[in-house]
Amino acid sequence: MTSPTSASPTSASRVQMHSSTALIPPPKLPEGGLRVVALGGIGEVGRNMTVFEHAGELMIVDCGVLFPEDMQPGVDLILPDFRALEQRLHDIVGLVLTHGHEDHIGAVPFLLKLRPDLPVYGSRLTLALVAAKCKEHRQNPRLVEVKEGEHHSIGVFDCEFFAVNHSIPDAVAVAIKTAAGVVLHTGDIKLDQLPLDGRLTDLAGFARLGDEGVDLFLVDSTNAEVPGFVTPEREIGPVLDNVIRKATQRVIVACFASHVHRVQQVLDVAVNHGRRVAFVGRSMVRNMGIAAELGLLNVPEGLLVDLNEAMTMPEDKVMFVSTGSQGEPLSALSRMARGEHRQISIRAGDTVVLASSLIPGNENAVFGVVNGLVRLGANVVHQGNAKVHVSGHASAGELLYLYNAVRPSNVMPVHGEWRHLRANAELAVLTGVAPERVVIAEDGVVVDLVDGQATITGRVEVGHVYVDGLSVGDVGESTLSDRLVLGEGGFISITVAVEAATGRAVAPPTISGRGFSDDPKALDQVVPLVEMELARTEAENITDSHRIAQAVRRVVGRWVADTYRRRPMIVPTVIPV
Amino acid sequence: MTSPTSASPTSASRVQMHSSTALIPPPKLPEGGLRVVALGGIGEVGRNMTVFEHAGELMIVDCGVLFPEDMQPGVDLILPDFRALEQRLHDIVGLVLTHGHEDHIGAVPFLLKLRPDLPVYGSRLTLALVAAKCKEHRQNPRLVEVKEGEHHSIGVFDCEFFAVNHSIPDAVAVAIKTAAGVVLHTGDIKLDQLPLDGRLTDLAGFARLGDEGVDLFLVDSTNAEVPGFVTPEREIGPVLDNVIRKATQRVIVACFASHVHRVQQVLDVAVNHGRRVAFVGRSMVRNMGIAAELGLLNVPEGLLVDLNEAMTMPEDKVMFVSTGSQGEPLSALSRMARGEHRQISIRAGDTVVLASSLIPGNENAVFGVVNGLVRLGANVVHQGNAKVHVSGHASAGELLYLYNAVRPSNVMPVHGEWRHLRANAELAVLTGVAPERVVIAEDGVVVDLVDGQATITGRVEVGHVYVDGLSVGDVGESTLSDRLVLGEGGFISITVAVEAATGRAVAPPTISGRGFSDDPKALDQVVPLVEMELARTEAENITDSHRIAQAVRRVVGRWVADTYRRRPMIVPTVIPV
Repeated sequence: MTSPTSASPTSASRVQMHSSTALIPPPKLPEGGLRVVALGGIGEVGRNMTVFEHAGELMIVDCGVLFPEDMQPGVDLILPDFRALEQRLHDIVGLVLTHGHEDHIGAVPFLLKLRPDLPVYGSRLTLALVAAKCKEHRQNPRLVEVKEGEHHSIGVFDCEFFAVNHSIPDAVAVAIKTAAGVVLHTGDIKLDQLPLDGRLTDLAGFARLGDEGVDLFLVDSTNAEVPGFVTPEREIGPVLDNVIRKATQRVIVACFASHVHRVQQVLDVAVNHGRRVAFVGRSMVRNMGIAAELGLLNVPEGLLVDLNEAMTMPEDKVMFVSTGSQGEPLSALSRMARGEHRQISIRAGDTVVLASSLIPGNENAVFGVVNGLVRLGANVVHQGNAKVHVSGHASAGELLYLYNAVRPSNVMPVHGEWRHLRANAELAVLTGVAPERVVIAEDGVVVDLVDGQATITGRVEVGHVYVDGLSVGDVGESTLSDRLVLGEGGFISITVAVEAATGRAVAPPTISGRGFSDDPKALDQVVPLVEMELARTEAENITDSHRIAQAVRRVVGRWVADTYRRRPMIVPTVIPV
Repeated sequence: MTSPTSASPTSASRVQMHSSTALIPPPKLPEGGLRVVALGGIGEVGRNMTVFEHAGELMIVDCGVLFPEDMQPGVDLILPDFRALEQRLHDIVGLVLTHGHEDHIGAVPFLLKLRPDLPVYGSRLTLALVAAKCKEHRQNPRLVEVKEGEHHSIGVFDCEFFAVNHSIPDAVAVAIKTAAGVVLHTGDIKLDQLPLDGRLTDLAGFARLGDEGVDLFLVDSTNAEVPGFVTPEREIGPVLDNVIRKATQRVIVACFASHVHRVQQVLDVAVNHGRRVAFVGRSMVRNMGIAAELGLLNVPEGLLVDLNEAMTMPEDKVMFVSTGSQGEPLSALSRMARGEHRQISIRAGDTVVLASSLIPGNENAVFGVVNGLVRLGANVVHQGNAKVHVSGHASAGELLYLYNAVRPSNVMPVHGEWRHLRANAELAVLTGVAPERVVIAEDGVVVDLVDGQATITGRVEVGHVYVDGLSVGDVGESTLSDRLVLGEGGFISITVAVEAATGRAVAPPTISGRGFSDDPKALDQVVPLVEMELARTEAENITDSHRIAQAVRRVVGRWVADTYRRRPMIVPTVIPV
């Protein structure tokens, strides 16, 4: 086995974890102690939000969204669960944002609805992206810009910011100093030693902080299972250059709309090969506008071209930078793959590059797009056949550097599913952290730092808060479980009008199915069974609509299980007239 | 770029392909010609089935199932489309099976329903698995055993069988000789040069056939995008040995229930470490019984132990070999991960090995199982953190060996999505096959081999045939599209009883939603709107139920879009009484 993560299976069984879902009200926080509770982001990848409490005040780090999976059909976004804050909204002294990705800033407008005056701290790019997001929600937040190297007192929390390297510029880590000790939160981090913008993760600063003593270290776990080191971002440039050199027709490059350095490399390659560039997709156009304005993206004069004009240019003089790298069905790239894009038709010999990760769960969608493009004759380059993507998160080797620089007393892995947290915990132990000082605390688990020791002291309720369309929270587990049943088997509805006094059916039952069968006669056989059952309920003088409905449901349910071995939802409606 | 697949993007644009979905009736097959049509398996991974026609007779190679994806909710299996055969059932002279995987044999019982007397040719293990499957369908097929090196005349088709190496024992390739020329079909293939059972892919036989001249070569495309060579299966043994040596408690190894050689290595390791073995899961127990009986699995006397007895043994003296490596929710392993298995409870410090691939689309399910196990304290080893799996399909490097041994005149990539087919086509071209002699023919595309040249001559209809519960074919695209709508947004039903003569509502409308909202008052606001609309239809003397229903649907649909920005299915029922 090559991964250090599997080197010490026994040590991890001594780390602290509270894997029961039982709620335990935490004790009163001892004076001088610091409490940490994640309302999202631990035990999952997404909706990062960690609440720190000291001396009666609360400070929040990040406030992101989670994207739904198969078991959450129809849901647009999942928010952190704010319930634990509801009674203490006015104790919150600030929201610190580590960087501008959706899983760290996406829920900010929803938190600001509860506390419109909450000061929001972040670096320039992060705040610019938050401002754009809040504008869509017609909010005007109190933004406070921070820079690496700066100290800010946020209530009782003395915060120091450190530059870190990630897949978006201007990311920071934050050290939080209180009477309880020093906490260091990495945010999302990697240790590219040759970053494109020269802005290194401040390992020297971390080491200096480590010299002073770090009591609790919250560490990005995303790639803790991956051995070794992330390849430097700048190695993608030559690969792109090689692909574009060989292209004789149009080139389309898809990547994340916030990956400024990736786009920078695409622009540089375009310049080298005398191609002009058109941005495609609303978020790509918006974000690159912001990045250019802040001086984070260097766009040579005259390089950009409007999409309409690009369509009139020679095929080998133009390049498109597009959204849609995750196979999102409505994105520009998906439309091209289906031959449905309004402007860009893929022709045999065109080149498409997916310079992006493949987020687990998106494989079918992404490969669907790749297959569609290949079918149209495009030459498709993706991370499966060329080195056109590197991760934004530290691999195991880099995490070891972090632990050895910081030498923390206590460690709390964050930003990951259980497998990532566990792998990260084992790395901490390998560098010498005592296993019992490593705390795996999924969402809602309460960790108190008291007298220099981090301990799990309770668990508060943290559920999934779903956004579906315009409303938040009204779609819950019961609605989702109905959707799953309906999505698997459709429904059969049976409508019966009965005389209120006698329970006698006044018309034949109306039976129909949706999502059940394409065969219009599929339900014919059940009609006489329902009529027989209604005759029985009438004979037994059953007049209660609810009891009649139950009887009908039973008959139809049994019939469909025996006849089809399927489980559609059975929906009886009895109308007394 | 490391993959040879992207070396020559231009050549591929000269391969033959028919990517329009327009149907073109193929011309009459010229005398002496051979026709090839895939009814499944090309343009997808699964339901492999290729029909060969010569001199008025048809021979079929493989007859498998495809497993459904997200866009086919509630479907159990997808069959090849037999429609193209319906008028010619009695021209079929034989079904040849290359090996015993579900995507090659799963649809055999459905084909035998149409032609119960059809002779089925295959190797011993393949036929044993087919026999077990047909028994479940109460069928008694005509099985004809074949061995590598043998020739069988199947009608006008002179077939020669070759040993090939794959992730199940006893796989074969088939050469089909007719007056039209020699066709070689690899089946599923890799070129493990140190196979566990010593049964090499017969590259020497292929070369000899190549000397005589192969006119058309059908080649497994699954791993054509993957550079290099598949690691020998036997290298997994030492990795497993290392994992099990360190385990002090129970060990559970999950893998495919047909992967005899993988299980053999698990058994060997168990022997080395003095552990007895219990098989868990119906298909694992059944298949390993068959394999042992045929002498393909070597089970030392006294090694196996019944699951109940295993539960009473010391933790370090037992090992479980289980199904569920793809995260199937009802499998033994998934139940363990959820803490719901009747017999096996995971304890902190147990070891679980997923010695299996991660089929695209199953990531969330598999990682869900891994996270559940880690959360319970298990040490989980999987292909992401240890070399416990190798593929059963040739990588690009091996495919080059195949092309260079066979030196075919015409090539038709099979067994793959478009991206795989295209990559395989490019490998063929790299070895010297003329691009215009390479045919990418997805399901339904008709390829005729006439005068030594393969040409696309038409396209017949090939749809998806869905099995849902007990019936085949009644669930079609319209039902699936309803399921997708219902699964995303649920439905709102509105039931109105009206006087048949006047259209006057005789009772207030009954409005309810399922899968729409957890809020019991969510639909209250729409009731008065429906009542107003009913008053309007009555005032306008509208008595037709259908028109009243349409009016109600419109009002409710508009309201829900404006109020919630959601798109549930709107289901109005109007009952004239």
